[in-house]
Parts: sequence; C-alpha cells; structure tokens
Amino acid sequence: MHITSPGNPRIKNVVRLTANRRQREQSRQTIVEGSREVRRCLDAGVIPAEAYLCPELIAADDQDIAHRLSQLAPRHAQIATVPPEIFAKIAVRGDSGGLLLVIPYTRTRLNDLPLSANPFLVVVEGAEKPGNVGAILRTADAAGVDGLILCAGGTDLHNPNVIRASLGTRFTVPVAEAPTAEVIAWLKERGIVAVAATPDATAAYTEADLTGPVAIVTGSEAEGLSDEWLAAAAATVTIPMRGVADSLNLATSTALLLYEVVRQRG
Amino acid sequence: MHITSPGNPRIKNVVRLTANRRQREQSRQTIVEGSREVRRCLDAGVIPAEAYLCPELIAADDQDIAHRLSQLAPRHAQIATVPPEIFAKIAVRGDSGGLLLVIPYTRTRLNDLPLSANPFLVVVEGAEKPGNVGAILRTADAAGVDGLILCAGGTDLHNPNVIRASLGTRFTVPVAEAPTAEVIAWLKERGIVAVAATPDATAAYTEADLTGPVAIVTGSEAEGLSDEWLAAAAATVTIPMRGVADSLNLATSTALLLYEVVRQRG
Repeated sequence: MHITSPGNPRIKNVVRLTANRRQREQSRQTIVEGSREVRRCLDAGVIPAEAYLCPELIAADDQDIAHRLSQLAPRHAQIATVPPEIFAKIAVRGDSGGLLLVIPYTRTRLNDLPLSANPFLVVVEGAEKPGNVGAILRTADAAGVDGLILCAGGTDLHNPNVIRASLGTRFTVPVAEAPTAEVIAWLKERGIVAVAATPDATAAYTEADLTGPVAIVTGSEAEGLSDEWLAAAAATVTIPMRGVADSLNLATSTALLLYEVVRQRG
Repeated sequence: MHITSPGNPRIKNVVRLTANRRQREQSRQTIVEGSREVRRCLDAGVIPAEAYLCPELIAADDQDIAHRLSQLAPRHAQIATVPPEIFAKIAVRGDSGGLLLVIPYTRTRLNDLPLSANPFLVVVEGAEKPGNVGAILRTADAAGVDGLILCAGGTDLHNPNVIRASLGTRFTVPVAEAPTAEVIAWLKERGIVAVAATPDATAAYTEADLTGPVAIVTGSEAEGLSDEWLAAAAATVTIPMRGVADSLNLATSTALLLYEVVRQRG
C-alpha cells in the first residue's frame, strides 16, 4: 500500500495517536518511531499493527528492518509506504529514519517480571514526566536491572515520548505497573529488600548494603516518596547534597542508586 | 514603568532574546525567568539590565525578590510591571512566578575559577543540548565541584534553556569556556589530574583513584571525547554497561563520575 494523501484516515489516526492519550487508550495502541527504537521493538517480539515506511529516508543500515516489516504483511501487519512530505506529518522527531510503527499496548504484571537469582529491581513512584521515565529506562537497561515497576500512576507509560527518551530500551527492560500496596506485598513475599531514597534519611546511599535481593525505590521530585513507601522500606538512604539546590533530577538520583548496586555487586 | 502594549519595543526585544541566539550575542544579554532562577541570579551578585514583574503572578514567598529588584531602579536596572497577558508573551515556561530578567552575559576565565584546597572540576567537551548542560550544572552543584569547564564549543552557554534546566545553578557553579588545548595545559600546570570517560577504557570508573586534585572529563554522546583529550588524560575510565543500549545520557554519565568522586572522598 502506498499512501500519498495527508487526508488519508490512517495518516490522521497516527497523528491523533501521537498527540492524544485518550485516543491511545481507546484503541490501546501507541507509536514507535526511529530506527533504533523500531529495531528494539521488533527484537523484543512485538508485532506491530501498522508500519509506515518512507523509502527515501531509510538508511542503508536499516534496510533489514524494512525487509523484516515487509515479511509481516499482509497477514500480521498493515504496511504502507509514504512519501517524505507525509512521513514528516506523522513523525515528531527530525531523525526518525523513515520508520514508524503503530503497536498494541503491552502489559506486564508483577508476577510476569523475570527475576534473576539475585533480584535487582527499580521502583518509581509518581514519576510525572515521560522524558524522566525514558531516561530511567535507559539507565535501568545499562545497569542491568531485572525490571522497572511504576506505581501510583503519574506517567502514561505508553506516551511515545517515553519510548523515544528511552531510545527503545522500553522494549528491553521489563516494566510492570501496580498500586503501591500491591508492590510492597509482592516484594516482601519474595524477600526483596526495598531501599528508599529520601532527602530526610541519615544514611548515605553508599553506606547501605545493596548486595542482596534489592528494589531501589525513588519518588517524584516535587512530592517525594509516600509515607506508605517510607514505612515499608527496609532502609532509607539519602544522596549527599553539597550545593545550593534542593534536589537532583529524579532520573539522576535513580541512576546514582542503581549504579551503586552495580558497584557493590562488582 | 508599566507596560501594557504587546507591541512595546522592549517586550519585542525580550521575545527576540529568548528565541534568537544572534540577538543575544549582539546585545550580549540573555533571559532569566522563574522565581528560583531569578533568586539565585541575584544572590550571585548579577545586576540585571531589565526586570519584568507581573504582580498578579508573584507568590507571597517571592515578594522579597520584587522588593530587591525595585531597589535597583532607577539607577541600576530598568524595572517594568506588566499585566498577565503580556507576561505570558515573554515567559516561555508555565510556572515562571511572574519574574523575568534581562541580564548581561557573564564570563569566567580559567584563571578566575576559584579552586579549593583539593580541586574538583568537571570538564565537558562538545555538549550539544542546552538541557544536558543545565542538568550537568544541577549535578555539579549537588556534588560540590569547584567549577565546570566547557570546551570545544557546541553549546550556547547563554541559551535560556541552560539556565532553566539548571534551576538557576548556572549562577552558583562557576563556569569557564576555553579551547581544549588551553584547558589541558591549565590543568597540568596546577597538578590537576584529568580522568576521562570513554566506552573504550578497560578500567571501571570506580577503580580509579579520584581522591586527589581531579578533573572529570566527559564528551558528547554522539562523538565521544576527542583524541586530544584521550591522549592528555592521566586515566581513562568506563562505566559498565549491562544492557542492549550503547550509552548512557551525557548528564547521567557525568553524574555517576562526579558522585564517585564524592563517595571516594567521603
């Protein structure tokens, strides 16, 4: 299929899916754009519902992706080629490499998170910004966590900006969403120690023993962690602050804690 | 002075300063908005050329800032009050708290950087995004560095987004800009050891001795550090990567290295 009209209903639908959370929730579909992101999405076994390819923009290195997508048609996915002026309409980024997918929502339950022999999780409560969640995913991937758990809402995990800011690690790091009380009970059952970051703690994060089964718990910059988490945590830790500003960025704090686990485990 | 017309030439000038680097460079002025940022700017002793206050939007906690600004007029600064509809035109953020300044460019030379007894610096080469430089400033403030050195251009340090993303720590962390060769010579003269982060290093960043006079050197995500820096560094270190993605965000990598210095120095 080749689409050349900006008024085509499928093109209009892609634009709405990008811009509009309600549209995404109704159809339970979201958007993946960019060659790196699309590659990681396909590598993770996600089957797109639709794919939009702009042959003029696809790099030589990414021809294999176009080939993989074409093999999914017509049984598994609707594949369309579009000219650059239509692609510019559906792609938000300047460097999407001529590749864009519509994918179904994926959902991982707590019990589906694959735990390693010495579990290492990161729990984020009330993260507001999609860019922050994407940045945390990127660090979580690099630090080798078993998974990320988001609790107490806040972020729309399926916001295309989460996928973009994560550079596609949204598809390599298992992510579960669950209410705080459920997460606390689930960790306890499995003997995974919750270590919560809060400016009010007395111990530095480098002083806590993070070598065993651990879940690093961080909360929103504005609100901090809920009392529920602070009460449930086996230990609370703080990051030393030597300047005038109140706090580090949520993604930065989380990175420091995750890499302290990596350092201690050696 | 009370300005009510959006066509007022001063209002137009503020809009141009925000949007346009050339405009900033010609007048050697930039924009600071937000109560936290304005407060840190004034605390650092910067004298604004102009200030725009929207009384309806200024919080009770920030009345002291409005008072401080009014004391600068008329000798030191042009102070104007504006109604909310004009303020919305000049402020980019939604939460600027009714305070916006036009300030002169400030410049710190390498020799003006205040060094502590055991110097601790961060050098960033070729940082592209203003948001990244702002995030690094925030972490540099928190980690208590003596200063940040930007080399090999890339970023416009006076981009208002640097100030915004830094939450005003642009004014609390001394920042110098200088060419790479000059920075290398300057560090060597002072016995400050350059430790450079590169994915090609064999030693982990946690294995290097960072307890003495040190400059952490990081480079752009896309390009990495120049050969010049890699050759000049006393040690090269890497951050372990256990996932599928190629690299951490520049601000995240820099944060891990700066806080490893903090950890080792205890």
